[in-house]
Amino acid sequence: MADDKKLTTRAADFSAWYNEVVLRAELADYAPVRGCMVIRPNGYGIWERMQRILDDMFKATGHVNAYFPLLIPQSYLAREAQHVEGFAPELAVVTHGGGKELEEPVVIRPTSETIIYSMYAKWVQSYRDLPILINQWANVVRWEMRTRLFLRTLEFLWQEGHTAHATHDEAEEETRRILGIYRTFMEQYMAMPVITGLKSESEKFAGALRTYACEALMQDNKALQAGTSHNLGQNFSRVFDLRFQSVEGREEFAWNTSWGVSTRMVGGLVMTHGDDKGLQVPPRLAPIEVVIVPIFRSDDERAAVLGAAHRLRDELGSWELPENRRRRIHVDAREGMKPGAKYYDWELRGVPLRLEIGPRDLAASQCVAVRRDTGAKVPLPMADLAAALPALLEQMQRDLLDAARARRDANTVRGPITWDAFRARMDGPGGFVYAGWCGAAACEAAVKEETKATIRCLPDPEFQSTPAPATCLKCGASSRHEAVWAKAY
Amino acid sequence: MADDKKLTTRAADFSAWYNEVVLRAELADYAPVRGCMVIRPNGYGIWERMQRILDDMFKATGHVNAYFPLLIPQSYLAREAQHVEGFAPELAVVTHGGGKELEEPVVIRPTSETIIYSMYAKWVQSYRDLPILINQWANVVRWEMRTRLFLRTLEFLWQEGHTAHATHDEAEEETRRILGIYRTFMEQYMAMPVITGLKSESEKFAGALRTYACEALMQDNKALQAGTSHNLGQNFSRVFDLRFQSVEGREEFAWNTSWGVSTRMVGGLVMTHGDDKGLQVPPRLAPIEVVIVPIFRSDDERAAVLGAAHRLRDELGSWELPENRRRRIHVDAREGMKPGAKYYDWELRGVPLRLEIGPRDLAASQCVAVRRDTGAKVPLPMADLAAALPALLEQMQRDLLDAARARRDANTVRGPITWDAFRARMDGPGGFVYAGWCGAAACEAAVKEETKATIRCLPDPEFQSTPAPATCLKCGASSRHEAVWAKAY
Repeated sequence: MADDKKLTTRAADFSAWYNEVVLRAELADYAPVRGCMVIRPNGYGIWERMQRILDDMFKATGHVNAYFPLLIPQSYLAREAQHVEGFAPELAVVTHGGGKELEEPVVIRPTSETIIYSMYAKWVQSYRDLPILINQWANVVRWEMRTRLFLRTLEFLWQEGHTAHATHDEAEEETRRILGIYRTFMEQYMAMPVITGLKSESEKFAGALRTYACEALMQDNKALQAGTSHNLGQNFSRVFDLRFQSVEGREEFAWNTSWGVSTRMVGGLVMTHGDDKGLQVPPRLAPIEVVIVPIFRSDDERAAVLGAAHRLRDELGSWELPENRRRRIHVDAREGMKPGAKYYDWELRGVPLRLEIGPRDLAASQCVAVRRDTGAKVPLPMADLAAALPALLEQMQRDLLDAARARRDANTVRGPITWDAFRARMDGPGGFVYAGWCGAAACEAAVKEETKATIRCLPDPEFQSTPAPATCLKCGASSRHEAVWAKAY
Repeated sequence: MADDKKLTTRAADFSAWYNEVVLRAELADYAPVRGCMVIRPNGYGIWERMQRILDDMFKATGHVNAYFPLLIPQSYLAREAQHVEGFAPELAVVTHGGGKELEEPVVIRPTSETIIYSMYAKWVQSYRDLPILINQWANVVRWEMRTRLFLRTLEFLWQEGHTAHATHDEAEEETRRILGIYRTFMEQYMAMPVITGLKSESEKFAGALRTYACEALMQDNKALQAGTSHNLGQNFSRVFDLRFQSVEGREEFAWNTSWGVSTRMVGGLVMTHGDDKGLQVPPRLAPIEVVIVPIFRSDDERAAVLGAAHRLRDELGSWELPENRRRRIHVDAREGMKPGAKYYDWELRGVPLRLEIGPRDLAASQCVAVRRDTGAKVPLPMADLAAALPALLEQMQRDLLDAARARRDANTVRGPITWDAFRARMDGPGGFVYAGWCGAAACEAAVKEETKATIRCLPDPEFQSTPAPATCLKCGASSRHEAVWAKAY
């Protein structure tokens, strides 16, 4: 049941607003172990749709699913030097099992490169066994100190793809293919525009050759890294002895990639589309696309209106319909609650479209559709609903992306910028800043130290500025890369 | 690539046969941590289909998914006395996180009653908040000493439903509804007949009021508990203070149920349908329903035959088709491998139907379908495939169930049985024995002690014998229940 207290506004306190939306829209709740969360049905329903859509995209590009164990021998993590340095501080360690102290402690996977490539080494003999294109949907644990619901939790859900290839170029192509899938998913389904590009050395995955990322801009003008795709080179195959006999009969090390997106995306969705009324879920990801609110005074009216509402749901939402034509419809038949209170509640929960049906609508064989994003009211003849609803929902899906893109672009600075102007920007409104970088880690570190802004990525060509920036933002030397800077989650 | 060594036969060593099938059909592999396994794509594909089907069945009966944390404070487990007694010996304990020793150790969930009902207690105030009908798909860890791939592993995947109701009768109805869903799933999808019934006190879930189970008979005549549904009464709601205000305004404790099936079902499927050639997957659960093996001598023939095979796959297996009309088809285009070796390989992997296409078939616009279960060869005109394949696959699905039921019934003993005859049965062929039980735990324990047979369940009415057994198998006193006895996994 919705709490009647008004939400904190985004302008007043974005962070408080975020937590309130997540809790009051019942996306998640705090769990008893610090930093862990419960994903409630409203939140899990969004995650499930994300899973289903991404899973289909992975399968359509030749990937299959598997499942590797939660528990990894501690020694495995230590084998790749950068990898252990990156993850050792965040490990959860199991020291006792079955009432006894273990001979070798085991860790809960923070990510599965080590266990997976050690298994691939067992399975692969020849180039005929390649490529391996495996994904898994799993939970991982990273013992983080500062946690936020969905954005950074001790345990989170994700998918992690792990592939093995015969050549560097094939692995690179896979890394880029997946980055493209992530981008398509984020833009076309989450309605969240992203910049794709390469991570700098200091920001890349521990153990990778190269990391690519999708970077989105939240409404508080902080960046969110929403998905990463890593070309691991031969780093893990050398450590785990993942070799194959090539076509020419030589023993070679395989080339690996890994890539993942997580429940963090749900947090990104909230911070991209939410408003001061609460959550907004893009139609394609909404567990409920349409909520029908019946309006009546008398018992007779109630029976007629509810009857019509249920008929609509049964017709348009029937399990017999193919999934792409089945509308996800809920009838709000709660007793003792006024329509206005129901509107408020469903707006908070972010359902894209509300259908109001009252006795006069029934008489006119119509209903009134109200858009969550604009509040616009559209009368719709009942007979047209099967065609009108999907059209309206797809329009909303596009409008949400356009609005998010316009906001992102309005908060992005390109073109020559002085160091002082950059600092003022990061002290003030934030957002993305495109600027030149000499490529020196020292400049990158100094910018971070002084402004908390980091290089989100070295953007892919289609996101680069013309002309390219001439000088490094920090040192003024000539620029080697254009970089996108922002403060980030 | 298939190992050329012949499989151990079931008759020679059922247990060795099972392990070989699981490993060589690439369903699973051993992981580095003792007792853990990797579920490989062939095995995970079966599990994924199980998930999808069960998930739809749960949703069609009003359930929704959520996700509760992996890590539970150790103290939570201790609150329900029977529950902790049941699970304490099997716990995996995390004592260190983020490089520090934890103030209170946390355990990896062996099952989630404690964490879930503690959350429900936060969410429920009034009867209006009931029922809660939540399911989760998750991994759990139980530190078992003797493990077997799929059947008993330290970590396994499962679904666990957890519901809260206003009355005992509603909870009981839910418990039974789910048992019915499990039975339907096992019979109609796994083609594995089961007996449903009540567990005895000694075999019920730790913390339950009543446990119901589905019991199947494997080919070695040992029983497999394949799914359980528990009426938890108010045991957990009292411990976690899960109260609600009733319609009449009284504070009452809620009534809970929990229920689960796991990756163990994949093991049950292997032991129900596998034969000396390897695995057999019932068509409805097969990740690949149909494998096309092209037959050719020359390059020209190769091009023509492979072209036809791919066209077939694209037509009948198109992603554009609704899921229920889309056939899961694989074309085996491997080079340098004779058709016979491919047949052998796909039989080992249990693909239900093989289509052979050679130049003469092409000329006659037909192909030859070969059933995995009977080996029968059926010529099929290409033009008929869209209708003929599903019909053939559905026929195989029914035949597998019939065959499994006939085998189960042939290995089931009913009617008056002496203690000596029972003992001889359990020392010898095994199987299910229906017999009377006085209801005393002492008799149940004595039977187990002397024969290793346990009460699998007190069967539901439709499985009971007529007339009912008159006397207790062990003590000869008058029988209070009919019980189904067997040695079990």
